Amino acid sequence: MTIEYNAIGVVHSPFKEARGTPIQPSRAKDAMGTVEIFDEYVEGLDDLDGFSHIILLYHFHRSGPYRLKVTPFLDTSLRGLFATRAPSRPNPIGLSVVELVGIDGNTLSVRGLDILDETPVLDIKPYIHEFDERGGARSGWLESAGGQTDVADDRFE
Amino acid sequence: MTIEYNAIGVVHSPFKEARGTPIQPSRAKDAMGTVEIFDEYVEGLDDLDGFSHIILLYHFHRSGPYRLKVTPFLDTSLRGLFATRAPSRPNPIGLSVVELVGIDGNTLSVRGLDILDETPVLDIKPYIHEFDERGGARSGWLESAGGQTDVADDRFE
Repeated sequence: MTIEYNAIGVVHSPFKEARGTPIQPSRAKDAMGTVEIFDEYVEGLDDLDGFSHIILLYHFHRSGPYRLKVTPFLDTSLRGLFATRAPSRPNPIGLSVVELVGIDGNTLSVRGLDILDETPVLDIKPYIHEFDERGGARSGWLESAGGQTDVADDRFE
Repeated sequence: MTIEYNAIGVVHSPFKEARGTPIQPSRAKDAMGTVEIFDEYVEGLDDLDGFSHIILLYHFHRSGPYRLKVTPFLDTSLRGLFATRAPSRPNPIGLSVVELVGIDGNTLSVRGLDILDETPVLDIKPYIHEFDERGGARSGWLESAGGQTDVADDRFE
């Protein structure tokens, strides 16, 4: 079964290519950008400004073909793709929790951006403590991983 | 631009219809189920068993047409759709953080399931404390919301 989606908006970001782009919001420091929501969806942004953080779901439009074993940015060993956050995936959907700084009409200003410029946005959800946090979660290979970097290279393009 | 995805697997769940299905994993108590991954993707599950929690992204295959203002299960007022986790969305992608109990071949056993039976799975990501938690996040309307329920009804079908 093929599932068809259409972008509801687009990311405007200082990051034009994978190399040098933060690998996650938690390593993006204060990187700022905007999310432009297409006019037909703007009414759906009501009440969102009460949330300090939002979940962005987006299409990794620049990612290359997926492989089922990959070396993640934070490791030096091959790992199963679904045990990583690599952008090249069977369905290349990206997920980032970013800080919502403000909303002006159809434009969301966000901090902690790790997303490439012109990335199509699929969905926006409010980040909710009760729903999205799991205290004490175990993080597998990442807890003893050999890699150390805050930014990506071009291995998944 | 139309974006095309294909399911990588399917959810097997005790919940056959929206009415009575937990609204979130945090309110699903010990509801158990399985995620069956199609054979061609199984190698990508390597190393996932080191993670206590996973993020499931899936297609809300039973949700009805979206509206940009909805009354969420946990409130009595109309809210902007993107400030809610309602399943009827322009791109009806669901996101649940569930506990990974075990992996046997192509089958993941999970706890805290809030997903309908036969739901197509789009992606699996490891849940990672550093990437996915934001301590002290503000939750807007939800902090003073009037609704109280742990399970859904059929309003979004």
